Amino acid sequence: MTEPGNHLPLSPSNIAKAHTLIKPYIHHTPLLTNTTLNTIASTPQATSDLEGTSWEGQSPANPKIRFYFKCENLQKIGAFKARGAFHALLRLIEEKGEEEVRKRGVVTHSSGNHAQALALAGKTLNVPAYIVMPSISTPSKIASTQSLGAKVVFSGSTEPEREAVKKEVQKETGAIFIPPYDHPDIMLGQGTVGLELEGQYEALKGKDEGKSLDAVFTPIGGGGLNGGVATWFSVPSKEGRQKTLVFGAEPSFEGGNDCQRGLAAGKRVEFVSTKTIADGLRTPVGLHNWAVISDPSKVAGVYSVSDDQIKKAMRLVLERMKVVVEPSAVVGLAVCLFDEDFRRKVEEEGGQDGWDIGIVFSGGNTTVEAISALFTSK
Amino acid sequence: MTEPGNHLPLSPSNIAKAHTLIKPYIHHTPLLTNTTLNTIASTPQATSDLEGTSWEGQSPANPKIRFYFKCENLQKIGAFKARGAFHALLRLIEEKGEEEVRKRGVVTHSSGNHAQALALAGKTLNVPAYIVMPSISTPSKIASTQSLGAKVVFSGSTEPEREAVKKEVQKETGAIFIPPYDHPDIMLGQGTVGLELEGQYEALKGKDEGKSLDAVFTPIGGGGLNGGVATWFSVPSKEGRQKTLVFGAEPSFEGGNDCQRGLAAGKRVEFVSTKTIADGLRTPVGLHNWAVISDPSKVAGVYSVSDDQIKKAMRLVLERMKVVVEPSAVVGLAVCLFDEDFRRKVEEEGGQDGWDIGIVFSGGNTTVEAISALFTSK
Repeated sequence: MTEPGNHLPLSPSNIAKAHTLIKPYIHHTPLLTNTTLNTIASTPQATSDLEGTSWEGQSPANPKIRFYFKCENLQKIGAFKARGAFHALLRLIEEKGEEEVRKRGVVTHSSGNHAQALALAGKTLNVPAYIVMPSISTPSKIASTQSLGAKVVFSGSTEPEREAVKKEVQKETGAIFIPPYDHPDIMLGQGTVGLELEGQYEALKGKDEGKSLDAVFTPIGGGGLNGGVATWFSVPSKEGRQKTLVFGAEPSFEGGNDCQRGLAAGKRVEFVSTKTIADGLRTPVGLHNWAVISDPSKVAGVYSVSDDQIKKAMRLVLERMKVVVEPSAVVGLAVCLFDEDFRRKVEEEGGQDGWDIGIVFSGGNTTVEAISALFTSK
Repeated sequence: MTEPGNHLPLSPSNIAKAHTLIKPYIHHTPLLTNTTLNTIASTPQATSDLEGTSWEGQSPANPKIRFYFKCENLQKIGAFKARGAFHALLRLIEEKGEEEVRKRGVVTHSSGNHAQALALAGKTLNVPAYIVMPSISTPSKIASTQSLGAKVVFSGSTEPEREAVKKEVQKETGAIFIPPYDHPDIMLGQGTVGLELEGQYEALKGKDEGKSLDAVFTPIGGGGLNGGVATWFSVPSKEGRQKTLVFGAEPSFEGGNDCQRGLAAGKRVEFVSTKTIADGLRTPVGLHNWAVISDPSKVAGVYSVSDDQIKKAMRLVLERMKVVVEPSAVVGLAVCLFDEDFRRKVEEEGGQDGWDIGIVFSGGNTTVEAISALFTSK
């Protein structure tokens, strides 16, 4: 990771450079297809499913959709976050030299996937990693971060409390802060998901077909993944080809759709407080991330879905695809299955051919207990 | 499927022929590896884990194990059964001609994966499929069999009641019976799992390494999968290579380990009544299957595991591999993780190099409700 002002511009070529840097350390995750999910998405919803929604009384859209699932749930530490963490740390070493970075170490605050991602990157590259976690975090998350060799430092659970503990660690050790999403190096790292997705899609389709993906969906929490992927697809893959549209998806529960609301208001929403089941997406979009996502030439739109729709999509992925995903991972799929505005758009713009849609499954870190709690309560 | 006496001998070359026949209709399922599971399997169990077992007081074995998971949970209809059903039906058409088979149709009794497998094969090949199911079957299983175009005929849940309904269907329609496991054509179809597994392992290792898989585990219910896979591996893949040992695994709960018990007594166990969570393995081994499995030159041993050990293995696969499997699918993995006799064998025979072990994940047909019930009750 580089100091502010020193970082590489957000561009496809810098994502390609990031990919070269991190490639030895990450999994080239598979791109899966699934006929059953294509069929479900390409079947109009029942009229009764639209009752009580803003689409009530409309005749359901009839789009033709083929999915390409980029399985970052099978990434190291079970989420795309490994990409950004490795990239930020490798860039930091490039800039400051191994010796200084190993002496000082790195610090972050996270109780989620970023904690484990930075712990793994630190362990792999021999850099001490300090992770500030609320002392009320799930014991299993604390244990797995520690088992990756990171030093877990406990704090209270409010933002100022975490910040104070982080500052204290930095004062003692000189550790350099690696934020979870709000930094260009993080976005460039996450953008490598887009690079791989496009290459795998083209390999699957056969090089000569000359077709691009019509659209790609990623979840939006802090916006690192969406901003990175949108940067990759900001220009067509080859001259003369159609540009791939990048969309974002959020949970709507208790205002978790801060990005969608911010776009409507023309102003980034800075605070969010939601208990949506999509727990990776409870954060507001970061500043650097907002700059990309609010640029309509980069992100074509942001949609949101209810927790109930997230559960329905998650059930389909577990039972039909036989793949374990966390709730945050399926918000994009849920939009494609349940949002009539989006489905109408695909029907109208895709016509007879329909759309090829890339869906980034962002992570798979859940437990059998969490799955049980999701599907037995209600 | 062929009439008794008319079928091809159980041999690797006839499995290769079966593969050519069914290849256009089935998925070439992936072979996955997983570092975390290798590490767990290659770490000695805690002494406390052996308390209350026959290994109490022994020092835990320290084998070195690398797994290769053949993911038949990603097969069409979510289980390997698609292979045997397609093969039996295609052989029947070869023998009797399309016209006769399409006129008469086929019949079976099953409330599990074989029902859906035969329904799919019938639908694909335009042959009417009649499935006799107990009227108390789960509505979702009935619905999914019907949605594959099969005619579901209800019966009582005892063997004579099912048999009576099956006979009635046959009298009315002339439908030809396709048994779930006890037939050479079914075994030859399931044996194609072994053929693919070996090819994928060699591709992964690099052709020149000249190493075979040390062992392969499959679950044993009726014995079609194990008998087929053991037939494939009954001779070394290439001259001069070491032979791959084939093992079977069963649930021990309420005597579900009928095959293991039969081998100990030197006589096939004909009746089993168990409510093990490995519901695909509640049946006794069939006659044709027993002939293969009881031949020590083909099957090197059969082990059994408790329902608790099955749950532990299933949790690891869901949470660490992010792959959905049904309880029956993980009995082989559970043996490798928990059975000290087997683990000692690998330590002694594999030594420093350890063993490369193929594990057949036989199926993934479960629901979020079933997962919840498994892991919240206790």
